[in-house]
Amino acid sequence: VAYRPRQSPYPMISVEEALGIVLEHAQPLETETVHLRECLGRFLADSVYAIDPLPPFPASIKDGYAVLAADGAGNRLVIGDSTAGSVPKGAVTSGYCMRINTGAPLPVGADSVVQVEDTLLVKDADDGRTEVEIKIMVAPKHGQDIRSVGSDIAKGEQVLEKSQKIGPSELGILATVGAVRVTCYKLPVVGVMSTGNELLEPDEALQEGKIRDSNRTALIAQVLEQGFPVLDLGVAEDTTEALFMKLKESLRKCDVIVTSGGVSMGDKDLLKHVLTDLGADIKFGRVFMKPGKPTAFATLEKGRKLFFGLPGNPVSAVVTCNLYVIPALNKMAGNLCPWRTVIKARIDEQVHLDPRPEYHRAVLTWQENDPIPKATRTGNQMSSRLLSMRTANVLLVLPPKSMEVQTIDSGTLVDAMVIGRL
Amino acid sequence: VAYRPRQSPYPMISVEEALGIVLEHAQPLETETVHLRECLGRFLADSVYAIDPLPPFPASIKDGYAVLAADGAGNRLVIGDSTAGSVPKGAVTSGYCMRINTGAPLPVGADSVVQVEDTLLVKDADDGRTEVEIKIMVAPKHGQDIRSVGSDIAKGEQVLEKSQKIGPSELGILATVGAVRVTCYKLPVVGVMSTGNELLEPDEALQEGKIRDSNRTALIAQVLEQGFPVLDLGVAEDTTEALFMKLKESLRKCDVIVTSGGVSMGDKDLLKHVLTDLGADIKFGRVFMKPGKPTAFATLEKGRKLFFGLPGNPVSAVVTCNLYVIPALNKMAGNLCPWRTVIKARIDEQVHLDPRPEYHRAVLTWQENDPIPKATRTGNQMSSRLLSMRTANVLLVLPPKSMEVQTIDSGTLVDAMVIGRL
Ligand SMILES: [Mg+2]
Ligand SMILES: [Mg+2]
Repeated sequence: VAYRPRQSPYPMISVEEALGIVLEHAQPLETETVHLRECLGRFLADSVYAIDPLPPFPASIKDGYAVLAADGAGNRLVIGDSTAGSVPKGAVTSGYCMRINTGAPLPVGADSVVQVEDTLLVKDADDGRTEVEIKIMVAPKHGQDIRSVGSDIAKGEQVLEKSQKIGPSELGILATVGAVRVTCYKLPVVGVMSTGNELLEPDEALQEGKIRDSNRTALIAQVLEQGFPVLDLGVAEDTTEALFMKLKESLRKCDVIVTSGGVSMGDKDLLKHVLTDLGADIKFGRVFMKPGKPTAFATLEKGRKLFFGLPGNPVSAVVTCNLYVIPALNKMAGNLCPWRTVIKARIDEQVHLDPRPEYHRAVLTWQENDPIPKATRTGNQMSSRLLSMRTANVLLVLPPKSMEVQTIDSGTLVDAMVIGRL
Repeated sequence: VAYRPRQSPYPMISVEEALGIVLEHAQPLETETVHLRECLGRFLADSVYAIDPLPPFPASIKDGYAVLAADGAGNRLVIGDSTAGSVPKGAVTSGYCMRINTGAPLPVGADSVVQVEDTLLVKDADDGRTEVEIKIMVAPKHGQDIRSVGSDIAKGEQVLEKSQKIGPSELGILATVGAVRVTCYKLPVVGVMSTGNELLEPDEALQEGKIRDSNRTALIAQVLEQGFPVLDLGVAEDTTEALFMKLKESLRKCDVIVTSGGVSMGDKDLLKHVLTDLGADIKFGRVFMKPGKPTAFATLEKGRKLFFGLPGNPVSAVVTCNLYVIPALNKMAGNLCPWRTVIKARIDEQVHLDPRPEYHRAVLTWQENDPIPKATRTGNQMSSRLLSMRTANVLLVLPPKSMEVQTIDSGTLVDAMVIGRL
């Protein structure tokens, strides 16, 4: 204890360097083929092509009558109908028409569709059950209100590109082209662990010297919200043996391990020693940022597993998860743009800058007469105060204090990293 | 068939009116009490208060030594340590100090913490295992690096407000205050059905006159992505009997039914007749918008169930789901701001306006030197072309053509409704 280092042995690196190192080691996982319904939010490992054209037949865009445009306006005898899902019987010839519904196949002979709103009934039979003759009020144009074969999707067309994210509409496209087996990148399995003898479960009553663990709950939810599978690894006690055993066992089940706590300068901050014992390659142990300075990152098992040692302060853990862990998970899942989106916002109060770059929690709102959103901070920004994360949908990226710039005035444009739904 | 209406019997209403009607009838569901881990993304039905303060004891912010500030800089004898999760033994008096870790309780007597970086080892014992005396290099200030009781959360403080959305950090707050049973609004159960004899399952080979159903896949995924439970109600054939039976059965299982197709002017567009047979109150059947004109909305069972009859064109279905269904689901789930977020974007090409207000699919990107995002449309905007939804994260809200304004120039600011992750 006495000879413990009194200064951190880890060089202080910038956020940009740290994220660069993380993304260098976060490589896309292998691929797997899953059912269409199981790939929402995942990234395609292969481009997808349409085997059939859409529509596969010339289809009506309207409910109305299939006609010969050359016949012009005027009366037509009705020879039957074409409804969606059936094959029309007979052909349309001059002077005749066929009733047709939206999405139904155009009958042979017809070259135009007239919507029902532009027609009148002239003669019916069977007590109104059958139309015999109708009148076209507006002269039709050739090809009008017809979707030609392949006009939505051409036969052989690339409908989705490798590495594209599969959202609801992309899933619809897969369904349309019949791609029910989809090759995606695997999703990284993330284990989340808290460390510290002071931690109680959320359902436990307080005891002297102890607090309830909130980091595990928040980090698990953050990872889940991003669509990644999570394992709850529980709480590790502050002993070398407990940490070693728990991490060693967890490595078998997870691609990525995220811990919080145990990374400061205390004599119970054992994580980095245990990582070394596990053969980890510690890539960094300190980052020039606030909150989040003691964030650690390591690789294990020849780079195949990633380890994030996040700080124990609740806000620091959430902020560094957003900054480092989520981009890494995105990249492992096959996302070619794994970075968080950063937009510009107008800060609505004066802010005194810190010597370190700071990440302030804020809520963006759009005002009636300003195309640039307003950023309102969520109160006291102390790193232990998880209440400052309430409702926050961005992290404001504040530059470090310099000789020239000590404060940022209200109304200044600042970078805002999107961390929640806008 | 012959006497079918040749004009829609439904008055054309505006999008604003339509959404107003939908939200008037979408009322928050009843509440239920669930475990903390089951309420991510849900809305609180009660405010949550802290029973205990956080921290519950004065806690160190740093790894270092607990001292008496009045002693100033200089040497101190080390009388023991205070580690996180334990109760420190003994009191700190003048000339003495106690080693302390981040998050550990401040020992009795001490009123200041000095970080280890500002200290030197003077004397050790037991071959370096025990610190006997250290030197404080910088005179400490009273209260320095101590989190006082309740400084993060005061005892009795309201930590979360009724109607607040429970995101990852809000879950962490619930864990911190020990609120493991949480009272939330129920989530609406949504049934999704397609209609049409032309529809095949995604895994079926094409047959003459038929196409694969994409709407059900896309709509289910859209609702799931928003966090609501979904039932796949399959495909209903275009007969009154099939539709009636399927809807009647589905009403027993769902709070909200979303169908696509069957709402146009064709003689197989039977939905509105069947709804009437089911005792539905059809609130509207046509909206002045493109795509999405034949969108229908009804209530059933004295207003307790909502029905959305979305158009069958794939893009129309996705657009109207975003415009009407998702805000309704949000309101039912307890969201006081159920509307989609609309921001300003700069369109990057000239657009010819339509007589109807149009919703164009686009991708927003932020350029280096412009705080306002650029909106790039996703190609041909035909309502059958689902490829136009690929990668889109906004719907551009284009005004209808007027005598004065027929086109919108490149660079113009337009409203962009956020429908995906930015
Ligand atoms: Mg600790
Ligand atoms: Mg139909």
